[in-house]
Amino acid sequence: MKKSALQIARAEYKPKMPKALHGYIKVEEGAATQSVADQEEVKKLFPHTYGMPTIKFVETSEKTSYPAINVGVILSGGQAPGGHNVIAGIFDGIKNMNGNSRLYGFLMGPGGLVDHDYKELTADIIDEYRNTGGFDIIGSGRTKLETKEQFDKGLEILKKLEIKALVIIGGDDSNTNACVLAEYYKAINAGVQVIGCPKTIDGDLKNEMIETSFGFDTACKVYAEVIGNIQRDCNSARKYWHFIKLMGRSASHIALECALQVQPNMCIISEEVEAKKLSLDDIITDIANVVARRAADGNNFGTVLIPEGLIEFIPAMKVLISELNDFLAHHQDEFNAVPKDDQLEYITKNLSAENAKVFASLPAGVARQLTLDRDPHGNVQVSLIETEKLLAEMVGNKLAEMKAAGKYNGKFASQVHFFGYEGRCAAPSNYDADYCYTLGFTAAGLIGTGKTGYMSSVRNTTAPADQWIAGGVPVTMMLNMERRHGEMKPVIQKALVKLDGAPFKFLEANREAWAVGTEFVYPGPIQYFGPKEVCDQPTVTLQLEQAK
Amino acid sequence: MKKSALQIARAEYKPKMPKALHGYIKVEEGAATQSVADQEEVKKLFPHTYGMPTIKFVETSEKTSYPAINVGVILSGGQAPGGHNVIAGIFDGIKNMNGNSRLYGFLMGPGGLVDHDYKELTADIIDEYRNTGGFDIIGSGRTKLETKEQFDKGLEILKKLEIKALVIIGGDDSNTNACVLAEYYKAINAGVQVIGCPKTIDGDLKNEMIETSFGFDTACKVYAEVIGNIQRDCNSARKYWHFIKLMGRSASHIALECALQVQPNMCIISEEVEAKKLSLDDIITDIANVVARRAADGNNFGTVLIPEGLIEFIPAMKVLISELNDFLAHHQDEFNAVPKDDQLEYITKNLSAENAKVFASLPAGVARQLTLDRDPHGNVQVSLIETEKLLAEMVGNKLAEMKAAGKYNGKFASQVHFFGYEGRCAAPSNYDADYCYTLGFTAAGLIGTGKTGYMSSVRNTTAPADQWIAGGVPVTMMLNMERRHGEMKPVIQKALVKLDGAPFKFLEANREAWAVGTEFVYPGPIQYFGPKEVCDQPTVTLQLEQAK
Repeated sequence: MKKSALQIARAEYKPKMPKALHGYIKVEEGAATQSVADQEEVKKLFPHTYGMPTIKFVETSEKTSYPAINVGVILSGGQAPGGHNVIAGIFDGIKNMNGNSRLYGFLMGPGGLVDHDYKELTADIIDEYRNTGGFDIIGSGRTKLETKEQFDKGLEILKKLEIKALVIIGGDDSNTNACVLAEYYKAINAGVQVIGCPKTIDGDLKNEMIETSFGFDTACKVYAEVIGNIQRDCNSARKYWHFIKLMGRSASHIALECALQVQPNMCIISEEVEAKKLSLDDIITDIANVVARRAADGNNFGTVLIPEGLIEFIPAMKVLISELNDFLAHHQDEFNAVPKDDQLEYITKNLSAENAKVFASLPAGVARQLTLDRDPHGNVQVSLIETEKLLAEMVGNKLAEMKAAGKYNGKFASQVHFFGYEGRCAAPSNYDADYCYTLGFTAAGLIGTGKTGYMSSVRNTTAPADQWIAGGVPVTMMLNMERRHGEMKPVIQKALVKLDGAPFKFLEANREAWAVGTEFVYPGPIQYFGPKEVCDQPTVTLQLEQAK
Repeated sequence: MKKSALQIARAEYKPKMPKALHGYIKVEEGAATQSVADQEEVKKLFPHTYGMPTIKFVETSEKTSYPAINVGVILSGGQAPGGHNVIAGIFDGIKNMNGNSRLYGFLMGPGGLVDHDYKELTADIIDEYRNTGGFDIIGSGRTKLETKEQFDKGLEILKKLEIKALVIIGGDDSNTNACVLAEYYKAINAGVQVIGCPKTIDGDLKNEMIETSFGFDTACKVYAEVIGNIQRDCNSARKYWHFIKLMGRSASHIALECALQVQPNMCIISEEVEAKKLSLDDIITDIANVVARRAADGNNFGTVLIPEGLIEFIPAMKVLISELNDFLAHHQDEFNAVPKDDQLEYITKNLSAENAKVFASLPAGVARQLTLDRDPHGNVQVSLIETEKLLAEMVGNKLAEMKAAGKYNGKFASQVHFFGYEGRCAAPSNYDADYCYTLGFTAAGLIGTGKTGYMSSVRNTTAPADQWIAGGVPVTMMLNMERRHGEMKPVIQKALVKLDGAPFKFLEANREAWAVGTEFVYPGPIQYFGPKEVCDQPTVTLQLEQAK
């Protein structure tokens, strides 16, 4: 593996850790906990892991000796910057407790546990991956650990390798499943602890004990870098509107954080669209109005940030898609028999009046995609819709109407972009490098102190790293009951953008000025070696959330 | 203007310059020059500026005093990182010669000269823009300075502002026009010198005296950063083929440089496609074969880099497009009368057999675009074709055929990307910050020593900056006669990728290994503050070209 100059230099970086983890550690227990909602149901489902106290590690001069332990680790779901540092932290943590401890990685995600695909992660392997992006050290995958069969199959290999603790690094679903697994192994006295780590660039796994999920910081900084560059281009050429879509199916944290970093002319937040019950036409009209106002000042250029999941948050679109799914499921053959050129008209005729109106307002390409590209269950594939193109095209049409009505007199040309894969495997920022390593080291501490069903928790991260607070939170504390595929399931509540939270409030207070003025900020690329104020800042979201 | 932390820190950077420019300068003249070709014709067109010697600045202890001078500057064409530093270099250079000198910027490109739109660039304005990306200090534009009327109109404002020298920062066309302007102003004794500066991220303005155009270094590093991140993702998820299109309509330098930095599985070079007379099917087959070979090793993932101009370099596509343009120009009404669903068939029937075959092989969407989306002159708009999607789709089809024939047994899923605007306005790398500032400072030296019709030239840039060689090259030396819009015109030869040059040879020697193995390199983001080997490296292209 040929390494870049930066990779070689960056390998030397020593992640910063809280003071409490520098020497011998002691557990300080908080009060017993409750799940965030549905306490009775959750308690019933997790009799062995419910109600445990939160945990905080504190410094002690008391030396503890730990037996050697074999630990397994799994990377679950989409990549996020810093995963390798979590694993390095676990490795150093368990070696620190006992030099004879061993770490095994299960390959290509949770499937590796079930299929018994693994490799031992030795010091020379770990050293190759310190402070690097990607999940390639053991790979990741999307298999869900949900069934007793999987748990039992996994246990076989855990027993064979004498693994006494398993760390699952993943998002909300994976941590929920980690909790179910912890409960099961405890219930059957399997002798295997299970610890979770909060990962996702989407930033939607957070609560009072989990300040942020790892990778969100780095990914947003990469997106903000390229958006900033586009904005500088936009402001130099002064002739394009750039429609920029960003990852985030369920929550708009990424779009919001990027907006706070780059100050675009507009940023759409799905949660606001849903709360205000905006229609697609409302959104288009809002954008077109900003375009027109800027054009009146001679500024025929600008930027709009769009969260990936937008379409599914527009109530009218949700209703339309639901009717489309339903109608097509029952009229597939009839639909197929209609000549291609008449299909859209056929659909329009058969929808309810309200949905027909929405459907007719869509550009032909999108309307066609909604009827033709369906998944194996026959459902419309919303994720295939190129929302950035859809909005650019519809804004163009709206502006043409406004021009005809004498309400707009500018030039409109657009460029579209989508950023996702560019950020998920970037080398972690100092923040994520430190945070991830500490999460891993903390997970080792939870293992050493015999915990199971906990998520590694590191807080106070807007302060310098030596003041960070490391510990564990019972996963059951974050659970509530939600309907999934028709069944009530215990799940970790997804953290959506709060419309009364400080980050959104900041956007709200400034967006009028950003829309009309050109107040672009150009963050530039992540720096690993420069001055503290350049290299060591957490996200704006976190700074605003934590500000007193 | 709110500045990012990086921008504030970066403002302090002092660009490095060659030793010869640190103190008083003296001109050392080389031999008289000849144009690269068509000497007689070029000489006839440029009687006053042909044959001038190359110039090199050398150190001297002799103090020269310079009169105060008013200078104008124009940014022409697409943005490139470092333009602001060229302007800062000009400003510091002319102030260094005489503190009463003044700099005027013409706004939004060459049009600003013709329309008399300008602003004086004072020290406080210049200081705001040092080491930043973008052209927003005065804006840029694509107006071509070509006619006597424009030249005379420009002269009015130059006289009014008492401007004695004009610096035009642009690509090959803009520098050709600068040369025509220099010749004209000299011929009419206008008393205005004209100096050019080599700008373009495409890297196609280079020759023995111009090592590289500015911005190429930074832009390629930004693209290599995001491609590297995608490759790390690709290698972690192991389930996608990423088709990545990069800027470069006329030449594939950007794709080649990125390939040298990131070692993708494949990189297509337009110049090779043309030289080997490859068909679209040849290219598709090549890619599909690599996909199949990797699949046989269990690797259903990879990366392919694609230069933006590819389609126009495929001889068979060129011929097809030419026949399409011709046919549609003469049968527009007939074509419009054909029902939409029959249009493709109608076209196919009317093309020559060879072109009909190529046309029929295209995905329907692309074929439709070729017949419907035409520019105001009725020509097919090749630039609208999403080549990355076209290739991904056609490779998928080819693999399906191969699978049916038992020659392929893998899984193929693709993701597409296009990077352009992300790199053009990034904050210049140390290399570009130094190179651009030196180009500007050198332009001031050429002005101070009375030159016109020269391009600022800075060479030996793979050595430490104090050993760089600064001077000037007569633009006429780079000219040859080429047919443009039916007329023979003097133009600067575009530097395409040389198939016998060291950079391409390096790709050629390694691509087999890169295709089958997974030898991705992850360059990471541009660093401005770290160790020398991370921050101060020129492009791989330049290093290979300059290596003895």
